[in-house]
Amino acid sequence: MHNHPARLIARKRDAGELGPAEIRDLVSGVVDGSLGDAQLGAFLMAVCCNGMTPAETAALTLAMRDSGRVLQHPHVTRPKIDKHSTGGVGDKVSLLLAPLVAAAGVAVPMVSGRGLGHTGGTIDKLAALPGYRTDLSIERFQQVLEQCGYAMAAPSAEIAPADRRMYATRDISGTVESIPLITSSILSKKLAEGIDGLVMDVKTGRAAFMVQEHDAISLMESLVAVGRAAGIKMAALLTDMDHPLGQALGNSLEVIEVVQALDGPCPDDLREVTLALGAEMLLLAGVAGDLDSARATLVRLWQDGVVRQVFRHNLELQGGDPRVLDDVSLLGRAPHVVAVEARRPGFVVDVDPLALGHVVVDLGGGRRQPSDAIDPQVGIVLKHGLGDAVQTGDALAFVHARTAAAAQAAAERVAAAMPVGDEKRRRGALVKRRLV
Amino acid sequence: MHNHPARLIARKRDAGELGPAEIRDLVSGVVDGSLGDAQLGAFLMAVCCNGMTPAETAALTLAMRDSGRVLQHPHVTRPKIDKHSTGGVGDKVSLLLAPLVAAAGVAVPMVSGRGLGHTGGTIDKLAALPGYRTDLSIERFQQVLEQCGYAMAAPSAEIAPADRRMYATRDISGTVESIPLITSSILSKKLAEGIDGLVMDVKTGRAAFMVQEHDAISLMESLVAVGRAAGIKMAALLTDMDHPLGQALGNSLEVIEVVQALDGPCPDDLREVTLALGAEMLLLAGVAGDLDSARATLVRLWQDGVVRQVFRHNLELQGGDPRVLDDVSLLGRAPHVVAVEARRPGFVVDVDPLALGHVVVDLGGGRRQPSDAIDPQVGIVLKHGLGDAVQTGDALAFVHARTAAAAQAAAERVAAAMPVGDEKRRRGALVKRRLV
Repeated sequence: MHNHPARLIARKRDAGELGPAEIRDLVSGVVDGSLGDAQLGAFLMAVCCNGMTPAETAALTLAMRDSGRVLQHPHVTRPKIDKHSTGGVGDKVSLLLAPLVAAAGVAVPMVSGRGLGHTGGTIDKLAALPGYRTDLSIERFQQVLEQCGYAMAAPSAEIAPADRRMYATRDISGTVESIPLITSSILSKKLAEGIDGLVMDVKTGRAAFMVQEHDAISLMESLVAVGRAAGIKMAALLTDMDHPLGQALGNSLEVIEVVQALDGPCPDDLREVTLALGAEMLLLAGVAGDLDSARATLVRLWQDGVVRQVFRHNLELQGGDPRVLDDVSLLGRAPHVVAVEARRPGFVVDVDPLALGHVVVDLGGGRRQPSDAIDPQVGIVLKHGLGDAVQTGDALAFVHARTAAAAQAAAERVAAAMPVGDEKRRRGALVKRRLV
Repeated sequence: MHNHPARLIARKRDAGELGPAEIRDLVSGVVDGSLGDAQLGAFLMAVCCNGMTPAETAALTLAMRDSGRVLQHPHVTRPKIDKHSTGGVGDKVSLLLAPLVAAAGVAVPMVSGRGLGHTGGTIDKLAALPGYRTDLSIERFQQVLEQCGYAMAAPSAEIAPADRRMYATRDISGTVESIPLITSSILSKKLAEGIDGLVMDVKTGRAAFMVQEHDAISLMESLVAVGRAAGIKMAALLTDMDHPLGQALGNSLEVIEVVQALDGPCPDDLREVTLALGAEMLLLAGVAGDLDSARATLVRLWQDGVVRQVFRHNLELQGGDPRVLDDVSLLGRAPHVVAVEARRPGFVVDVDPLALGHVVVDLGGGRRQPSDAIDPQVGIVLKHGLGDAVQTGDALAFVHARTAAAAQAAAERVAAAMPVGDEKRRRGALVKRRLV
């Protein structure tokens, strides 16, 4: 062993602990390239196998944050609070939540990612909005935040560059599943946003990144501890991803659901998760004294149309066409829309989010590989949920597809993912655990 | 996780088992480059952390062997037996052992490595012999083997190319210390020599690759089991590397010690280890019925000058100057030779091989980095060993150096590595364990 990195990697291989300066050295090597791919792959695997102490994870997170620019918002006097979700199927919460919380007097500087596999990404959903720009300069991002209370952007190359290389390396080297690596990846980018507090939506269930609840709880605990060690306020909710969130799956269809929810009907589950996360954000911001009053404030702002006004303001500032608020047909529509019909009477006994998520990917609405292009208009709109009574021939869902053949193939799979049986089942709690 | 290698790597991360076809896929990727450096580093680290079953290690070894050319020696009718050592300080056994065993009717196709750090390499020692070529073509290697009973070559690029990339990657990524990876690295190259049997010299002690005896025993057991699974005969000796082997340390000085030992004095420890390994080789070859008769045969051949004749024949065939047998001054001599004197009367209470090995490296006689050049003539000749009684001013050793300053600095360190005290200590057993 002839060099410093190999010695540090070997220490982690032997389940030893690395100090903050040693971790900074490794992260410097990630950014300047002096740590080679083989060394990075070996280091990441050693962390997967042997874990990291909370102190190590915090040091890694801070070193990754400091690998790039760390935003400050000197002209924003409001408390700056963000939300991050570990991702799921139909999760368009951020699009509703940011204007909701901004309407209540909180600044939300939200840097979001793109989707991969069955998991959607906020940036892809926003890309379905005609004209909307998420490739903001840091200066423009700060202006938008100051002017309307929230801004939504894709990660700039200046933000946490260490994470970009580490994330790409993990993806190909079988080193994704590691609580310390997931924690540092999420928090390094969020801390670089210049926030005072963060609410984590950690999802668990079939279509969640953390399928097992105990893994999701470990991640919640790690995120909250490391975020606090890094000096920001933290709260986390464990939420259900054993079923899709809302009724629309697919980028444009999800935006339409959000636009309609601003002053019209909103699916109960989407509304519930959005309000629960929003209330935590208000508490962290100190603009509400308890969860009940925070919720009441949010409900009032939503009902009174303030949220819609904030959404419109952001839309205008980020280049989007505000006419979509009155005419969602401006978002376009896939040419082939077919109904998925119930083949027997009974109850919907399952709505499998993983199967539905894969159907959306195969329709072209998601990515198999990070370089894949996305068809924003394809997807699925659910017309019935778990436990609903249906008759033969009732539409369970509509598939929106680019071709008739794709629509037909998808419809078969949607039918299989939404079986009808005799038992009336109920969805479990949406918010399964709270960590504050 | 989007690809086959990442899935296999993740299985090993989770301590699962890989099948032979899966291991072959990974090794194919090592050779054709489709397995990236990050993936290779992560895979190697997963093996370090979670180990491999004997079946996995055997599959890895065979896949690595089959990544290049596997020699056959159809014109060699003798049994083909090799010896491999895990390396140490002053270990010039191969240079004596190969002609010794060849003299007894065994074919020894020996592919050896270069030294790194304090550990010497047979190829570097042979390079000190004027004119001697180790860069033989495979065809020439086979001819030499056929004509004189042994041939010594550096590894050809055609032999086990997977190991070359894996070894280089392990060196920089903190993944050297792994019984399955060490086993497959050693045996893949040895199996490619086309041998019927292999005797392993696994060293343990301060200057050994395996410092701890229990680690060395694990490696012995792994090597013997995997070699047998691959279809060759195996024996292994656990030998001491808590002190240097022989009296000469440094490439040219070690060759001189060997040449003198062919028909003159041979240090007891060097003689003992050489005969012990040679006897095992004769047993594996089936040319002796038991260890005692094998040893007696070797002693007779050595005393009768047959070994010296075989050495001369090989020297001629491989381009070396046979006059060195009668005049070792042809090997040259470093310009500065200084004595290291005892500063008090007493007994030599230690001869630290690691410290002495590092002195040789710093004199220019070894490599810090694989690309370093070597000065063949520098080194150390020990004049006293552990437990020897000395008077003040007696020469403990001589340092051979390129400059006066280097000689002086080295002499100080040699004195520290050979302390004189009041206790008369004895070296422990040279051969500590036998596994057949």
